[in-house]
Amino acid sequence: MTFRYLSNIPLEEAKTNFLQTLMQEGLKPSTEKIAVTEANHRVTARAVYAHICAPHYNACAMDGIALAAEVTYGATETRPITLTPDQFKWVNTGDPLQEDYDSVVMVEDVIELENGEVQLFSAAVPWQHVRQIGEDIAAGDMIVPSFTELTPPVLGAMLATGVLEVEVFSRPKVGIIPTGDELVSPQAEPSSGDIIEFNSTIFSTTLQDWGCQVIVYPVVKDQKQLLVEAMKKAVQECDFVLLNAGSSAGKKDYSVDTIEEIGQVILHGIAIRPGKPVVLGYTKQDGKVIPLVGLPGYPVSAILVMDHLVKPALNILLGKTDQPEKLVTATVSKRLTSSLKYLEFIRARVGNVNGKLVAVALNRGAGVVSSFVKADGIIQIPQNTEGYEAGEEVPVQLVRDMEDINKTLVITGSHDPLIDEVIDLMKRKWPDTQVVSSHVGSLGGLMALRRGEAHLGGTHLLDEETGVYNTAYVKRYFPDGGVKLVSCVYRSQGLIVAKDNPLNVKGVEDITNLRYVNRQKGSGTRILLDFLLKQKAINPDQVKGYEREEITHTSVAAAVSSGTADAGMGILSAARIYDLGFVPLIQEQYDFLVDEKTFDNPQFQHMLEIMKTDEFVQRLERLGGYQLNNPGEVII
Amino acid sequence: MTFRYLSNIPLEEAKTNFLQTLMQEGLKPSTEKIAVTEANHRVTARAVYAHICAPHYNACAMDGIALAAEVTYGATETRPITLTPDQFKWVNTGDPLQEDYDSVVMVEDVIELENGEVQLFSAAVPWQHVRQIGEDIAAGDMIVPSFTELTPPVLGAMLATGVLEVEVFSRPKVGIIPTGDELVSPQAEPSSGDIIEFNSTIFSTTLQDWGCQVIVYPVVKDQKQLLVEAMKKAVQECDFVLLNAGSSAGKKDYSVDTIEEIGQVILHGIAIRPGKPVVLGYTKQDGKVIPLVGLPGYPVSAILVMDHLVKPALNILLGKTDQPEKLVTATVSKRLTSSLKYLEFIRARVGNVNGKLVAVALNRGAGVVSSFVKADGIIQIPQNTEGYEAGEEVPVQLVRDMEDINKTLVITGSHDPLIDEVIDLMKRKWPDTQVVSSHVGSLGGLMALRRGEAHLGGTHLLDEETGVYNTAYVKRYFPDGGVKLVSCVYRSQGLIVAKDNPLNVKGVEDITNLRYVNRQKGSGTRILLDFLLKQKAINPDQVKGYEREEITHTSVAAAVSSGTADAGMGILSAARIYDLGFVPLIQEQYDFLVDEKTFDNPQFQHMLEIMKTDEFVQRLERLGGYQLNNPGEVII
Repeated sequence: MTFRYLSNIPLEEAKTNFLQTLMQEGLKPSTEKIAVTEANHRVTARAVYAHICAPHYNACAMDGIALAAEVTYGATETRPITLTPDQFKWVNTGDPLQEDYDSVVMVEDVIELENGEVQLFSAAVPWQHVRQIGEDIAAGDMIVPSFTELTPPVLGAMLATGVLEVEVFSRPKVGIIPTGDELVSPQAEPSSGDIIEFNSTIFSTTLQDWGCQVIVYPVVKDQKQLLVEAMKKAVQECDFVLLNAGSSAGKKDYSVDTIEEIGQVILHGIAIRPGKPVVLGYTKQDGKVIPLVGLPGYPVSAILVMDHLVKPALNILLGKTDQPEKLVTATVSKRLTSSLKYLEFIRARVGNVNGKLVAVALNRGAGVVSSFVKADGIIQIPQNTEGYEAGEEVPVQLVRDMEDINKTLVITGSHDPLIDEVIDLMKRKWPDTQVVSSHVGSLGGLMALRRGEAHLGGTHLLDEETGVYNTAYVKRYFPDGGVKLVSCVYRSQGLIVAKDNPLNVKGVEDITNLRYVNRQKGSGTRILLDFLLKQKAINPDQVKGYEREEITHTSVAAAVSSGTADAGMGILSAARIYDLGFVPLIQEQYDFLVDEKTFDNPQFQHMLEIMKTDEFVQRLERLGGYQLNNPGEVII
Repeated sequence: MTFRYLSNIPLEEAKTNFLQTLMQEGLKPSTEKIAVTEANHRVTARAVYAHICAPHYNACAMDGIALAAEVTYGATETRPITLTPDQFKWVNTGDPLQEDYDSVVMVEDVIELENGEVQLFSAAVPWQHVRQIGEDIAAGDMIVPSFTELTPPVLGAMLATGVLEVEVFSRPKVGIIPTGDELVSPQAEPSSGDIIEFNSTIFSTTLQDWGCQVIVYPVVKDQKQLLVEAMKKAVQECDFVLLNAGSSAGKKDYSVDTIEEIGQVILHGIAIRPGKPVVLGYTKQDGKVIPLVGLPGYPVSAILVMDHLVKPALNILLGKTDQPEKLVTATVSKRLTSSLKYLEFIRARVGNVNGKLVAVALNRGAGVVSSFVKADGIIQIPQNTEGYEAGEEVPVQLVRDMEDINKTLVITGSHDPLIDEVIDLMKRKWPDTQVVSSHVGSLGGLMALRRGEAHLGGTHLLDEETGVYNTAYVKRYFPDGGVKLVSCVYRSQGLIVAKDNPLNVKGVEDITNLRYVNRQKGSGTRILLDFLLKQKAINPDQVKGYEREEITHTSVAAAVSSGTADAGMGILSAARIYDLGFVPLIQEQYDFLVDEKTFDNPQFQHMLEIMKTDEFVQRLERLGGYQLNNPGEVII
């Protein structure tokens, strides 16, 4: 195997290098004339001037009578004047003002007399209730300068002044070439090792949002010659080409070679994580500069490279300006370590709990696309920095509106699918519901509440001594109160095993003989396992796979379902989803621990309201293994 | 003439009444199943669950070797272990992990020996560099709840978990029926009294931005029966119908009758200005509720009604939530009076000058669509309030990003088309340029600078005693300094008259015999006229039209061009645009007065840079009547 070594250039340097090279080589936007009616959100390539005035004649601005103001002079409440029909004309709003008139009196102020005469009780002021020619925009006035994004009122102003066509920057055509032997279409039934090709959809919808046209080419196998051919076709048809993936330095990574063959590689490898293996280059086609970018294969890496490198280059073609990141300062709840070598981007939940803005890091894996689904913001740890300490205030780039974040109810604690069902039912009843939930285990939830990072969390913590759920822990962790424990359900915990339980597992005493999959430390389910093992005097060392950790019931079930584990503890509903066997062990109490100040929060009250509905009961029945336990009742 | 009387219901009450009636009658969104690849920005109609796990198998997360961690136990820097080919397998990122293995060692940590063996210098940890099945999302997990707007990463997450179709709310079809005898298409050459039909374009692009489909029907004449027929067709084809205009109570206003005939009128007339004459109603078609709205004819009125009443009703169909207005607090510079009867919406420029946020009201006319082109925000004066005093802090609803507003250079003062040309040249060189200019006359500009509402302004104020431009005024208005006067151009002022000067105007001595059009008080041009009249001992009372005020050179030229005035004072370039006659009177000095703290502002420096370019000279030549006067030189 041969390896190329990737460079490790700081992001800003790489970006400057990339953009300056493209500009020096002559990258520039092309323009087109289009109908104004089709130009919403397009960017002007030159200044737009009014062709005619708006209004294009002196127009009556009221229903009433038009006249020369001087005929009304002297009229007062006590000495009204009477006008004969030759002195005025009845008009509607929008009618042209005839040349010898200069004002309009509104109909409410006109008293109609016999034989067409009218009476007025006050004098008119010249040019009152007249929209003078050009009052809005005069012919020759600049409506908007170059490099201006058009909006509906601007289109209206153009049409009102006789401008029917507008020269705008053309929408760049971006080609996406998905590459990889393992890629299969999302429509295919994927086998082990197949990678579902969903990156193209992320890229193409993102590019469309930015104002580009997109061509997604068919998947190309990992063979350099095929890639070169696909690339040649794309540079004929496009203004910008993205290769995905094969941008790293593995034996099947041909992006850099392909770009080298078609054009010039500017650089390969950037000091960011995720996103390091990127190739930046360009080619020229009939004098036109076409940027070529090899994107990393992991979606998170690729999205970051799209945002930080592809977008600024596209903005040159779009006539748009890079918008500065929206930064806020938030407290990080846990220590975040980072390599000195890289600028690191960490997706994070951001929550406002009692006025304190807290950022909680999400799964840092480059393949974890759900981290972008859940992210409110992105924490950047600069290069040459070891990271942040817990409690430190750090800048976070927001990807959601601060207003939404501020009103979001943050649930952090034990995982149960019922939380998602409650959120869905809330959304259906109150669509403006803003609730997010993170799974960190019961103890993790208690700690988050204590640190002021969450409004509430699900919890099922068995006290070994008393055999009572939750209350002992609450008293221990919140000796001064400040929280309320709210009842919810009983749920069935047990061992999730293969369908029909082929290994005939009866209880925890049997798991020493098989491949177990565990839950993370601090989760109620792990505490329950430890308690049961202790009862049976089994040492965790005897359990093979005790160190293999999953963080949700469903991922434990997924591990069993995949055949890489024989058993794991979890709730019945998770076993059901995967159509697996289930060995029930205990009915446990699952409650919500809520910050006292949150109890009256309308969204929390909505939650409680939902937990008392028939729809909630139906959802629980569908999940299986639940029994209502006076939901909403305050236990302590 | 018969008049209906419009009701005067407060906006909030009207909105509640409208929305509640629609909901009670059964207005609800329809849903459809569409391909995930086509679902960007659509809103989920039900919760979406993962069909399969992502990743759907245990995947190697690094290039390197896969193995069972236990075979590496004991390996250290000093005591490496050697593995035979049967104990490991070379893998690439993304390869499936075979069942009896549980970890991956990255290639950088593997030393290849002869005959296929490898050496390791540290022990592997079980499940290291493995993306476990369901690590990202486990099958059965809820990806997003109902009423969630889909974004590119969510589409990626769906495809990654085998979700190919998604149930979303259908895009409502909105019909727009333009009505009015006077309406002509923007393509037509409009005659006096014709109204260019540009409202439909404003509405349809706005509706598309909101997520609707739009059908614009042909223009219907002001005849009730024709309107009823058009409406009947529209309710067959649409989910929501807008009639525009004819919503008031004039003799040609049939909206309310039409809606009454087709369905139910909920109310007619709302206590807002502009926007009062609106009709809200609905009909039922095969049990489906179809909202019907008669929009006012003036574009500003109609846009406000769209935002405050149509959008909330459409949001019900779109599955979206009304977003709260983005409010900031700004100081109003001038007294704003308002009727007690109405909630008034006033479009405003918002500027940040030395840290002080100032809102300057734009033209309040309901027909002035350019006020929406220029607006940064909207000042609301509540009902039962007489208005705001100058200097009062008031809430302003922003329509532009605060970040953009904060960096915008605010030019307020004398009008000259060269300012727009400078801005355009700046935009072309630095597309992120943010400069706005308002025309309030030279003195108005000085006052705005003094009040801290502007960064700079154009000025040409002739001192009657010394005959010197600007300096005397600057010393009088800024006795303590704080500003710099920066030289720009000489420009040719004179009388704008009809083409070939048919009335043979030679100078101000001739204007007493004709219809004059003046500039507003405080403009340098008016001060110049007064000076010249005084020189000739002419009393302003002798000038017919002395009170007719326009606020720009081009609108004076437009008035002359339309034939409603015979002469007006202005600059040569304005006469040229309209191909009019021009009687030159004086070469006047046009400078910029700039706040001292703004002088080093990069955008102001860009302005100065532009004024020294050849392109600027070319633009001036095209306008005509200018001569450079050491642009950028600081006079005092």
